[in-house]
Amino acid sequence: MAKQAAPMIENYSAKLHSMVEWLAQFGADEQGGVTRLLYTPAWLEAQQALFDYMEMQGLAPFYDQVGNLTGRLVGKQSERLPIVTGSHIDTVVFGGKYDGALGVVAGVLALSYLKETYGEPLRTIEVISLAEEEGSRFPLTYWGSGNITGSYQVSAVPVVKDRDGVSLEQAMKQAGFGAESIYSSCQREFAAYIELHIEQGFVLERTGHQIGVVTGIVGQRRIEVKVLGESNHAGTTPMQWRRDTLAGAALMISSVKRSALEWGDPLVATVGSLQVSPNVPNVIAGETTFTLDIRHLDHQILNDYTDALYEEISAIAEQEGLTLSWKEHLRAEPVPMHQAMIDDLQHVCDQAGISSLSLPSGAGHDAQIFGVECPSAMIFVPSREGISHNPLEYTAEADIIQGFKVLTELLYQYAYRGEDHEAL
Amino acid sequence: MAKQAAPMIENYSAKLHSMVEWLAQFGADEQGGVTRLLYTPAWLEAQQALFDYMEMQGLAPFYDQVGNLTGRLVGKQSERLPIVTGSHIDTVVFGGKYDGALGVVAGVLALSYLKETYGEPLRTIEVISLAEEEGSRFPLTYWGSGNITGSYQVSAVPVVKDRDGVSLEQAMKQAGFGAESIYSSCQREFAAYIELHIEQGFVLERTGHQIGVVTGIVGQRRIEVKVLGESNHAGTTPMQWRRDTLAGAALMISSVKRSALEWGDPLVATVGSLQVSPNVPNVIAGETTFTLDIRHLDHQILNDYTDALYEEISAIAEQEGLTLSWKEHLRAEPVPMHQAMIDDLQHVCDQAGISSLSLPSGAGHDAQIFGVECPSAMIFVPSREGISHNPLEYTAEADIIQGFKVLTELLYQYAYRGEDHEAL
Repeated sequence: MAKQAAPMIENYSAKLHSMVEWLAQFGADEQGGVTRLLYTPAWLEAQQALFDYMEMQGLAPFYDQVGNLTGRLVGKQSERLPIVTGSHIDTVVFGGKYDGALGVVAGVLALSYLKETYGEPLRTIEVISLAEEEGSRFPLTYWGSGNITGSYQVSAVPVVKDRDGVSLEQAMKQAGFGAESIYSSCQREFAAYIELHIEQGFVLERTGHQIGVVTGIVGQRRIEVKVLGESNHAGTTPMQWRRDTLAGAALMISSVKRSALEWGDPLVATVGSLQVSPNVPNVIAGETTFTLDIRHLDHQILNDYTDALYEEISAIAEQEGLTLSWKEHLRAEPVPMHQAMIDDLQHVCDQAGISSLSLPSGAGHDAQIFGVECPSAMIFVPSREGISHNPLEYTAEADIIQGFKVLTELLYQYAYRGEDHEAL
Repeated sequence: MAKQAAPMIENYSAKLHSMVEWLAQFGADEQGGVTRLLYTPAWLEAQQALFDYMEMQGLAPFYDQVGNLTGRLVGKQSERLPIVTGSHIDTVVFGGKYDGALGVVAGVLALSYLKETYGEPLRTIEVISLAEEEGSRFPLTYWGSGNITGSYQVSAVPVVKDRDGVSLEQAMKQAGFGAESIYSSCQREFAAYIELHIEQGFVLERTGHQIGVVTGIVGQRRIEVKVLGESNHAGTTPMQWRRDTLAGAALMISSVKRSALEWGDPLVATVGSLQVSPNVPNVIAGETTFTLDIRHLDHQILNDYTDALYEEISAIAEQEGLTLSWKEHLRAEPVPMHQAMIDDLQHVCDQAGISSLSLPSGAGHDAQIFGVECPSAMIFVPSREGISHNPLEYTAEADIIQGFKVLTELLYQYAYRGEDHEAL
C-alpha cells in the first residue's frame, strides 16, 4: 500500500458497511433482503440517491441513455481513456444486499478516498453503477454493460417483456431513459475495467483466503439430454428386458460427476434439473429428460470435455437400449481476465500482506462484457457460506475492507503513478 | 384333453372373441377401449347383461350384497364346496377389453361348454363376475373378492370417496346393493379358485409360450427415499465440495438396477418416480426424492433384498455426505398359488401339447385374495407387446382358445372325475 494512505483507509470499513446498508433501503423487501428490478421505482430511487451522493463528493455524475450512472474523478491527462470501476445495483427477486451493490459502493468510496488523500489523478477514474446485470425483470442479461460495449444498442431494444407484460422499451422510457432521452449515448471506451464483487461461492471462506484474484469468467454449455426408452409395468417386466430411461439417466448422471472430478478444477458439470415421464411409482419410466450445465475457464477443455461426455453418455444409451437426443441450449465462451492486471492485483495483495487465491468466476459478471473490449479484472471478497441471491447473503466488514484496499491501491497505481503499466 | 370334447371346443374360439367384444360395448369409451367403473351405469348394465346370459344358459345366476354375480352349474355331490372360476369386469379409466373381462367370459363359456358336453358334474362349478378389482373409482382394491373372503365386510364399508365426492357406500346403495339389500350375503367358501387372465406383460410373447402357469402373486414393498444435501450455485461450487442429491440419487438408482439383476428373476426393483428440488439447471439439487417398487414371490428374499438395498443406499449416502430418509409406504406379502393346482395345470398343458411357462404374476389379481382362503391357481394368456390398461390391450383368438382349453380341462378334471384331487 502507499504508505501515506495506510492510517486513513481503515476508517472506510465502517463507511463501506453503512453505505451498503443505506443502499439496501431502496427495494428492501419483506424477506429481509433486497428486490430492486431494472427501471422500477426502487431501482430509480437507488440510482438517484447514488447520483446525489456522487454529486456531494464532487464526482460530477451523469446518466447515459439506458440509465447507467457514472461518477468521474477527472485526471490531468484527460485525453487518455479513463479507468473504470463499478458493478450493478439491480438484484434478483428476494436477493441480498451485497451482490453488485458492494462493487458500486466500493467504487464510489474509492474515488472519494483517492480524491481526498491524493487529490487530482493523472488519468481520469470513473465509477459506474450499471443499469442491469441479473436479467431478473426481463429475460435478458447485461443490458447495462452491453450498451456500453456495443453488444446491445439503445436504438434497437430487444422485444422482451416482464411478467406483467411491460416491454423493456416501455419500462426504459417510463423511467426517463431511451434513445430519445436527454442523456449521453451509451457506447464508450475505457483503458481498463476493475470490478469488486462478492464471490457467491464458498471457496475463499473454506480455504481461508481474504481475496480472490479472478482469472476469468468461465465459459458455459447448457445441454438438454432426452432419453427415450419403453414405459412398462414395474411388476410384470423382468429386469433384463427393460428399457428404463430413469435407470439409464442414473448411469449417465453418475458418469457426469465421476468424469468432472477426473478432469479436475476448475471444471464443473451439473445435472440440476430432471423430469421423468410418466413419473409413477409402478411404471417404468419411458422418457427422462435432464439438463447439463458445464463450465470451464478454457475454451478448448470445455469443448473437449463436452465432446467426451457426449461419447460416454451415447455409449451408455446404446448399452441400455435407449435413444438419445442431445440439444445445446446455451453456449457462452470463457472470458479470461487480463493477465497483466491479474499480476498487478496479485502483487498488490502480496505487498499488503493480504492472503489471496487465484480462482475463476463460475458465475457471470459485467466484467465478462467489458473483458472483450478492454483489459478487465475482478476482485472477489468472501461470501459467508457461499450464500448469494438470498437475503442471507453476507460479507463481513473485515473482509470488505481488504477488498477495498486492493481496489483503491490498484486504481492508485494506474491513475496516479507516472509510469506506463503493461495492462493499460 | 378329454377326447370327446376335442372336436367341439375349437368352435369356442369365435364365441370367446365375440363375447369379449359384446361385453366391451358396456362402457366403450372414446379412446376405443373400455371405462367401466364400479357401480356406474356401464358396470351395472354389463353385470345385468351377464346375468341374463347366464340365465339363458341355465346357470341360475345370483348377486350377493356387494354385486358380485355368480352363475352355477350344480353338481350331484351338492354338499361339497364348489369349484369357482372367474375374474372382474371393472376396468381402469381408458382400459382395455381383456383385463378381467376375459376371465369372466371364459368362465361363463366354460360352464356352458362343460354342461353341453358332459352334462351334470359331480361337484358344483361356479363362475363369478367379481364386483371390483382395480380400485379405479375408489381408492380401494379387491372390494369384490375381499367381501367373499372376509377381508372386507359389506356391513362396515370403508369411508372412501370417488373424484366426485360420492362415497363407496352411497354408490353401492344407488346401484341397488348393500347390507340392507335383498341379495345373499357375500362371505362364502370354495374348494378351489381358478382365474384365467391376460399376462399384462410380454414374457409369454417374447419367449414364445402359449400359456403361463402362475406360480404366485408377488409380494411388494413400496418405499419413498428422500435424499437431503446442499443446494448451491452450479458455477461457483467446485465438484469436490458438493453435496449433490441428484448425483447421489443417480448412484443409488444405478445400484438398484445392478443389484436387482444380480439377485435375478423373479426379483424386480423399479425407480419409477423422482422429484428434484429446486430442479433448476444452474443450481445443485439440495433435495431429491424417489420411489422404490420391489417385488418378489418369496417373502424372505423380498425382505433380504430390501434390507441389502437399504444398506447399499445408506452407504452411498454416507460416502456422498448426504442424509437419507427411508419410508415404507406399502407392504404386500407374496401369495403363492397352490402347488398341486400348479402341477395339475402343468400336466394339462403337457397332455394337450400346449407350450407353457411357469412364471409369477408381477401384478395383483383377485387370485391373491382367494389364495389366502382356498387352493387357487391362475392361467395367463399372452398380452400383445405386454400392453395393458390401455385401449391397445389385445390377445389373439388363437391364444385365448388355448387358455380356454386349459381352463375347461382343469374344471372337468376337478368337477367331473370321481377321484379325489390333492388340490381339493
